[in-house]
Amino acid sequence: MQQVTVELGDRSYPVQVGAGLLARNTALLELAEGRSVAVITDTVVDRLFGDVLAAGLQAVAHRLIRIVLPPGEGTKSWESMNRVFDNLLESRFDRNSLIVALGGGVIGDLAGFAAATYQRGIDFVQLPTTLLAQVDSSVGGKTAINHPRGKNMIGAFHQPRLVIADTETLASLPSRELAAGLAEVIKHGAIADAGYLDSVAGKMPELLAHDPVALADAVVASIRIKAEVVARDERESGARALLNFGHTFGHAIEAGAGYGKWLHGEAVGTGMVMATDLSVRLGYLGADDLARMKSVIGDAGLPLQGPPWPLERYLSYMSIDKKASHGVPKFVVLRRIGEAQVQKVDSELVAGAIAAHVAPG
Amino acid sequence: MQQVTVELGDRSYPVQVGAGLLARNTALLELAEGRSVAVITDTVVDRLFGDVLAAGLQAVAHRLIRIVLPPGEGTKSWESMNRVFDNLLESRFDRNSLIVALGGGVIGDLAGFAAATYQRGIDFVQLPTTLLAQVDSSVGGKTAINHPRGKNMIGAFHQPRLVIADTETLASLPSRELAAGLAEVIKHGAIADAGYLDSVAGKMPELLAHDPVALADAVVASIRIKAEVVARDERESGARALLNFGHTFGHAIEAGAGYGKWLHGEAVGTGMVMATDLSVRLGYLGADDLARMKSVIGDAGLPLQGPPWPLERYLSYMSIDKKASHGVPKFVVLRRIGEAQVQKVDSELVAGAIAAHVAPG
Repeated sequence: MQQVTVELGDRSYPVQVGAGLLARNTALLELAEGRSVAVITDTVVDRLFGDVLAAGLQAVAHRLIRIVLPPGEGTKSWESMNRVFDNLLESRFDRNSLIVALGGGVIGDLAGFAAATYQRGIDFVQLPTTLLAQVDSSVGGKTAINHPRGKNMIGAFHQPRLVIADTETLASLPSRELAAGLAEVIKHGAIADAGYLDSVAGKMPELLAHDPVALADAVVASIRIKAEVVARDERESGARALLNFGHTFGHAIEAGAGYGKWLHGEAVGTGMVMATDLSVRLGYLGADDLARMKSVIGDAGLPLQGPPWPLERYLSYMSIDKKASHGVPKFVVLRRIGEAQVQKVDSELVAGAIAAHVAPG
Repeated sequence: MQQVTVELGDRSYPVQVGAGLLARNTALLELAEGRSVAVITDTVVDRLFGDVLAAGLQAVAHRLIRIVLPPGEGTKSWESMNRVFDNLLESRFDRNSLIVALGGGVIGDLAGFAAATYQRGIDFVQLPTTLLAQVDSSVGGKTAINHPRGKNMIGAFHQPRLVIADTETLASLPSRELAAGLAEVIKHGAIADAGYLDSVAGKMPELLAHDPVALADAVVASIRIKAEVVARDERESGARALLNFGHTFGHAIEAGAGYGKWLHGEAVGTGMVMATDLSVRLGYLGADDLARMKSVIGDAGLPLQGPPWPLERYLSYMSIDKKASHGVPKFVVLRRIGEAQVQKVDSELVAGAIAAHVAPG
């Protein structure tokens, strides 16, 4: 087992990475001991890992309930929140209760937001079971549900008490979801560590083959980068925005297509191509850098082109993005591979960067 | 104008108290300057104060929208939240936007929770227009909506950037709501300052007659007590629970009767009678203390007896209260008038304290 700590003063917490941690984990059992515990998961993940997790918790918890929701982005809704609240209230869960989020980013975001708002905030634990959730969404305390007008529009910053990434859960992950997770791994390299990006590119065959050692190394390395950024800027007023590299474009694709059509990581993959192209247009990068990014994104099996929409459709879905200030979107761009910054960009450059990577209609 | 600061490190904020502050307030205009601003209010308050507030804001804000909701406890719902979110998203409000809550506790709680969760949290300002909101709910950052199974079950701690209590708004306050606000004033004296309780008792005729000087003094004195408690314990892990004196019983009355039948302050008035009686049963207070509390609560025009329900009905609505730990409710009791503490209490004593103050059926 490897461990990374997210340093946030009295809200610091450990992220543990290793094989078989869902079945036996001392930190989780200590946290659950004597408390009312609700495991929130989806039907697919529950079938795979629900029983093995419950067996351990059952022995120590004051009371254990399981709340099993449908899989998919549609679950990040107020209806799901209410289903969770109904269950918690029916079982008379109080402020000292614990929520355990078992699943991918959808479950983590939803269960985290439920924990953030149930009785004005209770403890929760993230047990991410997808690569995307392990390297990105489970760490840092961002929780949210979607609104028809925008993804993650309603949410809260609420840090977990503990994150446990059991790399055995990745063995059963479908290839498309594995690729989506690699988008965030590539992102971490692009914004913070060119050497790490090279090593990910070199290990791509092993990663795509679900090699457990390659995956565990990538998870730990990515979490280290993410934890360091979050520690510097918990509530995204500065440095944390760098983690949104590719996301302004990506959100436009994801929202414009309708949630769930594109996986988040797929949209971020294409979004990073556009954001890298934008960095070239700004004079920060050369054409070889764009080629290098396209190569690693493409090798991961991620799409290099956005949907065949008119430019206006991209722009209209971008300006509502949370990074916007007074309606003028800011962009995360690369000064060089391994170093990112946030800046306002002339809209003609943005238009050019999008147009260059739109699929023929 | 008088000012009290709520000391919470980098989340500290001023509470300003005075006559005519809605019409002219430098701090508010400075905060609103150049930003997208949404005033959230109800139809009754909007008619009284909406235009005078908007006139000032209009001049400085980048954009100003008004979201006017129905009055009443039923507005503390997810439906209202969604109406707010729809309006904010439609007007493309971003993370730098400002919410201004203009109204009583319902509007403050709802608008505050909307601010806490819109795009994971934006700034907000409280402009309380009822005595209850001015002395209690607008200060301290508690925000929430109701759930059919319990009041304030879904919410967040989210501190305002500024609170402005314009005491002129109290001139139009109906007597029943004035009395409900006095419940919290009495509470502040009971838990923290016996001399203040005496002075409130002595000034009761002036307070009930809407005397502006008496009201302004009570607002400032109450906010000082509340601000001090909140500064010691922002998230109610310790001292802040003392502010719930009378509230465990009160919540049972409020929830059991159906939200809105009893005003919150009315239920707290009767709840304080029960909690004082409980303190007598614990041997902390004498019968004279109970008589003194009943006298000031009764003089304020608040009910001294709860609804004619069987004991079980009271108990069932109490144990879900947020102060519960593992389902065993804790109670705020008085060691003496002016000093409170939280403790678990034998259920027979609780039953006795309720039964002694239930209206004949």
